[in-house]
Amino acid sequence: MDIMNYGSGVGADENWIVEEARFDPRFLGKCEAVLALGNGYIGQRAATEERYVGETRGLFVAGSFNKFAENEVTELPNAADFLWLDIWLDGRRFSLSEGKILSYRRFLHLRNAELVREVEWEAPGGGAFRLRFRRFVSMSDIHLVAMRVEIESISGAVNVALESGINGRMTNGGSQHFADGDARFYDYKVMQMTQKTVQSGIGFAYSGAHLFYMGDAPLDVSGSIHMDRRQVFFRYEGIALGKGQCLAVEKLVNVFTDRDLDFGGPDLAGLKLRSLEHVRAATRSSYGALFAEHRKAWKEKVWDAAPIEVESKTPYDQLALRFAQYHLAVMAPAHDGRMGIGAKGLSGEGYKGHSFWDTEIFILPYFTYTMPKVARALLEYRYNTLSGARRKAAENGYSGAMFPWESAWIDDGEVTPLWGAADIVSGEPIKIWSGIIEQHITSDVAYAVWQYFQATGDSGFMEKCGYELILDTAKFWSSRLEYDERKGAYCINGVMGPDEYKEHIDNNAFTNYMARWNILKAVECHDNIKANAPELFESLRIKLGLDEAYPLWMERVGKIYLPRPRSGDSVIPQDDTYLDKKSIDLSKYKNQENVGSIYRDYNQEQINAIQVSKQADVMAMFYLLPDLFDDDVKRANWEYYEPRTLHDSSLSLSTHAALACDMDDLPMAYNLFSHATRIDLGPNMKTSDSGIHAASIGGIWQCAVNGFGGVRVVSGELRVSPKLPTQWSSFRFPIIWRGDRLTIEATHSGVSIERTAAGGGAVKGEIPVWVYGNKLNLGEKLKVDRNN
Amino acid sequence: MDIMNYGSGVGADENWIVEEARFDPRFLGKCEAVLALGNGYIGQRAATEERYVGETRGLFVAGSFNKFAENEVTELPNAADFLWLDIWLDGRRFSLSEGKILSYRRFLHLRNAELVREVEWEAPGGGAFRLRFRRFVSMSDIHLVAMRVEIESISGAVNVALESGINGRMTNGGSQHFADGDARFYDYKVMQMTQKTVQSGIGFAYSGAHLFYMGDAPLDVSGSIHMDRRQVFFRYEGIALGKGQCLAVEKLVNVFTDRDLDFGGPDLAGLKLRSLEHVRAATRSSYGALFAEHRKAWKEKVWDAAPIEVESKTPYDQLALRFAQYHLAVMAPAHDGRMGIGAKGLSGEGYKGHSFWDTEIFILPYFTYTMPKVARALLEYRYNTLSGARRKAAENGYSGAMFPWESAWIDDGEVTPLWGAADIVSGEPIKIWSGIIEQHITSDVAYAVWQYFQATGDSGFMEKCGYELILDTAKFWSSRLEYDERKGAYCINGVMGPDEYKEHIDNNAFTNYMARWNILKAVECHDNIKANAPELFESLRIKLGLDEAYPLWMERVGKIYLPRPRSGDSVIPQDDTYLDKKSIDLSKYKNQENVGSIYRDYNQEQINAIQVSKQADVMAMFYLLPDLFDDDVKRANWEYYEPRTLHDSSLSLSTHAALACDMDDLPMAYNLFSHATRIDLGPNMKTSDSGIHAASIGGIWQCAVNGFGGVRVVSGELRVSPKLPTQWSSFRFPIIWRGDRLTIEATHSGVSIERTAAGGGAVKGEIPVWVYGNKLNLGEKLKVDRNN
Repeated sequence: MDIMNYGSGVGADENWIVEEARFDPRFLGKCEAVLALGNGYIGQRAATEERYVGETRGLFVAGSFNKFAENEVTELPNAADFLWLDIWLDGRRFSLSEGKILSYRRFLHLRNAELVREVEWEAPGGGAFRLRFRRFVSMSDIHLVAMRVEIESISGAVNVALESGINGRMTNGGSQHFADGDARFYDYKVMQMTQKTVQSGIGFAYSGAHLFYMGDAPLDVSGSIHMDRRQVFFRYEGIALGKGQCLAVEKLVNVFTDRDLDFGGPDLAGLKLRSLEHVRAATRSSYGALFAEHRKAWKEKVWDAAPIEVESKTPYDQLALRFAQYHLAVMAPAHDGRMGIGAKGLSGEGYKGHSFWDTEIFILPYFTYTMPKVARALLEYRYNTLSGARRKAAENGYSGAMFPWESAWIDDGEVTPLWGAADIVSGEPIKIWSGIIEQHITSDVAYAVWQYFQATGDSGFMEKCGYELILDTAKFWSSRLEYDERKGAYCINGVMGPDEYKEHIDNNAFTNYMARWNILKAVECHDNIKANAPELFESLRIKLGLDEAYPLWMERVGKIYLPRPRSGDSVIPQDDTYLDKKSIDLSKYKNQENVGSIYRDYNQEQINAIQVSKQADVMAMFYLLPDLFDDDVKRANWEYYEPRTLHDSSLSLSTHAALACDMDDLPMAYNLFSHATRIDLGPNMKTSDSGIHAASIGGIWQCAVNGFGGVRVVSGELRVSPKLPTQWSSFRFPIIWRGDRLTIEATHSGVSIERTAAGGGAVKGEIPVWVYGNKLNLGEKLKVDRNN
Repeated sequence: MDIMNYGSGVGADENWIVEEARFDPRFLGKCEAVLALGNGYIGQRAATEERYVGETRGLFVAGSFNKFAENEVTELPNAADFLWLDIWLDGRRFSLSEGKILSYRRFLHLRNAELVREVEWEAPGGGAFRLRFRRFVSMSDIHLVAMRVEIESISGAVNVALESGINGRMTNGGSQHFADGDARFYDYKVMQMTQKTVQSGIGFAYSGAHLFYMGDAPLDVSGSIHMDRRQVFFRYEGIALGKGQCLAVEKLVNVFTDRDLDFGGPDLAGLKLRSLEHVRAATRSSYGALFAEHRKAWKEKVWDAAPIEVESKTPYDQLALRFAQYHLAVMAPAHDGRMGIGAKGLSGEGYKGHSFWDTEIFILPYFTYTMPKVARALLEYRYNTLSGARRKAAENGYSGAMFPWESAWIDDGEVTPLWGAADIVSGEPIKIWSGIIEQHITSDVAYAVWQYFQATGDSGFMEKCGYELILDTAKFWSSRLEYDERKGAYCINGVMGPDEYKEHIDNNAFTNYMARWNILKAVECHDNIKANAPELFESLRIKLGLDEAYPLWMERVGKIYLPRPRSGDSVIPQDDTYLDKKSIDLSKYKNQENVGSIYRDYNQEQINAIQVSKQADVMAMFYLLPDLFDDDVKRANWEYYEPRTLHDSSLSLSTHAALACDMDDLPMAYNLFSHATRIDLGPNMKTSDSGIHAASIGGIWQCAVNGFGGVRVVSGELRVSPKLPTQWSSFRFPIIWRGDRLTIEATHSGVSIERTAAGGGAVKGEIPVWVYGNKLNLGEKLKVDRNN
């Protein structure tokens, strides 16, 4: 019972349209997230103008974190609701719960980043109406949200009333992050409201105004002004609409905060003025004109920057890739290096807007390979959070930078909540351990820094931020190691690996190998900058205490305990005890409709004692560190672990899909890709309610480009070895490699790579590229026939 | 288009039933308030189990005030929602917005204080069901709320699922007063949640459990347990219900706070245990058994304590009086002398749970004359707030006790908010001046103390609280007076009288006469206790500094400026400038459907300049101080002011109705009484949304007993001179006078008064009663024929 239609875009719109098939209140939350709008500054859930039971309206402004109370953690607050626009037709409030829906269509046009709803509706008391709602969150002017509603009376003359405002009563699951501020109307035209977050003290100013038209002609409509608690709104009454006439109202609203990088301060008065002048300027334009600018910005920044084309027997695959690119643009706060990407982007309250390893491992590669400036801003965010990471290390008795498992504002440090859902055995809340023991995030950040540098060659970033990140994370790891006399090696005990079903385990393979990688990379960077950048080295030597750190790395890095493939079946123990745990029949959970169903039967303690994994763990290690083991070992572990993995994390699929490509299991890879594209877009009713799965959306691109496209970096050099699934006949995508744009076009018979220089002009020299096992030199173009 | 039916109670239920005529989402708020349940500790709005757009769910616990943020004032927080109980029938959520309503009836049974809803509903996908919902807030066990839902499938077998919990996400118009606390399940049977108010630090504990029945037989149903943010809930799935079978679920829930008088502390652990044990005890009983105890408590405490019977051509009059008594019982925190009655009782967020003069002047008389213990608790509340009243006086440069215009917790002092709705001229919020300049509240409290003493003779209260209240308020007034050389008198300038359309006026007649009354009464009390209670006098003399206060009273009380009837038309100026203001045609506002319509055309400044009054002002003075002017003056002023009064306050009607009786204008009095009874029960769609009008409900009783019943105290002696409107043939009601119960039965031909002693047994001596102008002596009974 799919709620989404995908085939409705025709002609130029083919595979650009994500359409809600029908109005079904059970899917309100899902559609609010999947059809959300945004521009990296604002995220706006696709709630409707009129309210429904079960909805979760949401407006999020990137980076505006606040902590409601001492026993909560900081989170991205649900800001004021702009969308509120109620329509009365002859005194009857427009609501699809009542009356009769004669026709219905709501769709997100990905290219336009516009949400459109077209309804023909019969009111309960009679009277038929055609309503059309349009909305965008501007990409060319990040403070602007524009809406347009057209009302046409099909059956006869009608008296129209509207109520439209800004509603600051929103909460995050009941937590109110804002103190109510000033409210004000200007000239009966502009409504304005301010708020201030209660703990972090961030000022918000909102302004809104309306434009009316009868047909195409501007219409002068005067409304009454209303202030209620945390609300400002206009009421427009007694608008006469004749049969066949079309009344249009455009609502132009904005939000500004005093955290905005370009806001000079000093106080809210300046912010209010900014917001007021901004909306006044907007009202001198129109929805249509503002929309044209917005559309142009999307074209330039997204669609022309990274055009991806797939010829597939399932055209949905093309749509899914565009859907991923769309949401990646919506979620990324490219405008401000003090902000990360939340696990739900800006599309819901889930995970409180916090950033996890999801960003570095699952989302960042897209930006690193297509929009390196955005990637750099996201890595700068981590650099800007170093003070919190150092504090976390110190508080735990370690050195260097220990990155928070969950990260919010730059100086917040660790913000993982301590308590989760109910334990089905004790009836008490479950303790969340990841903020304390899920430590691999620290090497994940270092890994992403290096990956970015590999792909971009951005030495400026490395000098400013990157080396410090790699060195300081290595300092953490060398202090974190615990010498085990029995093993005669340095262990990392009492952690949680990527597989969150296993808590308090020793020597998680992923964690240990990545820690070693991190220290080795630090040694390499240290030696390199010592030799080549003496001034930089000197400043880092003093700042980070490298005279002490370096000998410790050298002494310990060779003695880190590394779980080895066991003799016989080559299975690498996920941790010291995993392989000794009991096995149970997992088929019930492998075939589950909803993730996490195992928690209905077992509590965390019981799951800890079973050979079952939430997500890729040893597999994730293979994916990130491809050179460590040969294909036979990888395959043996795949066969052991995959059946024990419930993929109860959306992070699991892209890893497995890329590895399946490596192992030439294209049907499996395509199956996993298809599964990944359906995490948000698929029929599941509830899993996206609290927001889209940002990492999974990054994973869609990874499945395609790193998987089928075969793009990897091996030993610092680019590999491009596409292997298309039978469903695909061609796959064309760009990557940016060290400043140049490579356009890769793959078919089943081979691949061509075209290279253009960053600023246009001639490309310089040749670059080595590994294609199907051969190292080739790429000048302007090369073409490889796979069967030769 | 009435939403209420009143004639549906038949037989023993005649005039006991307030029925919602149909399900109409536009009236959700009104019905939630009008049909609210409560017991003076808990107030529970009549939201439905399932949610609707436009509803305002609300649970209030008396006295649990909290201030959300510095720029807000303290208010009664909206506590967790108990009512949440969603029903799925074959996967379709029960909601009256969808499908088809085959029959509908919801009614508040006043005698039983039970809310019942009976629905026959056809699901959108087919299938017909009979549902019956019952609910009460226990009067015998003030912490208990009990619900029962019966589900019968008419059309065929059905799969039933239920979700039922406690939801702590509620806010007051967006302000969240609670920090989330612990959540816990016990034995898969009991759900529990705690909260703590963020500023006042009051701990709340809630527990809930369910009992199931198939027909009459207990049914064992096991559910899954869920914790979400600020929520605990059970989900019961897969309950098979055959055609014609009836599934019943009973939900028993409670709330306890650490502010409860009988809670010993020391911490929330004790509170949680109390709540847990309480709900466990309840589950050993049943809805039916708990309901029987509740019903008995209502009979004893309310219906047998003050049975009022009216024979009217409009039986609705009887119902309206019971409705008033019902809500007076629901709103009064009789259990705790630290709590007042809010302007909306416990039925909504309006006026933030604050107490105004409404309590003393419009609500207290009912309790003083029928349940003096409750009246005493309410006056003790004012006594307990003296520290705040003294602080307010001192902060304003005055002496004694200056009572806050709005009062919340006992030591809060003044809590009137500073800003209101939008000014239609400037677009900015209107400043609310009443907290600063509406000062008559101080003499209103003193007046109520004296009225209570007159009626009860409770000298114990006077010694403990009453004298101190009268003396200290008089101290305030003597310090408040300003000598005006020109007038050669003490003036009270820059105030607001009861008529809130006039701000910053000088010498408001009501204020000045009441201040004088207050000082005169203090002089009288002073002299009396000095002569008769030397120990008490000595302690008050020292505590209140009477050696200084008394001479000041004596010097000034005779020189207070008292506006006099002007020559010619005998009109008493409401204040120094009222009679000089311009007159406009007020007919548009006199005939308004909604109160406050004048604000659509004029702002406060403009209204200030017009001869228009919101409510009784000079009339209120006549009512409270009946001996000051003769009937001709009263009539002349009535004729002048009534046409200029918009009755835009619900406080206006009862005053006018009682005066109309005095002036023998029974048709006018009945008209005003009818109007008063329709403030909440009438067809107006919106005015009760934020809660019932507590003062107006007290006013219904006042219209009847003080108006038609002719009960007054004149010069310290009881007057009983009933005058029935033509619609009424008889009127029987009790009052308690100095401990004895007088049952008064009036007809058009005369009145009989029967006297019974407080504890039963023989009455002692005779008491003087003024009946129709004659002073009579009442022994056990007297009967007066009016025409003799």
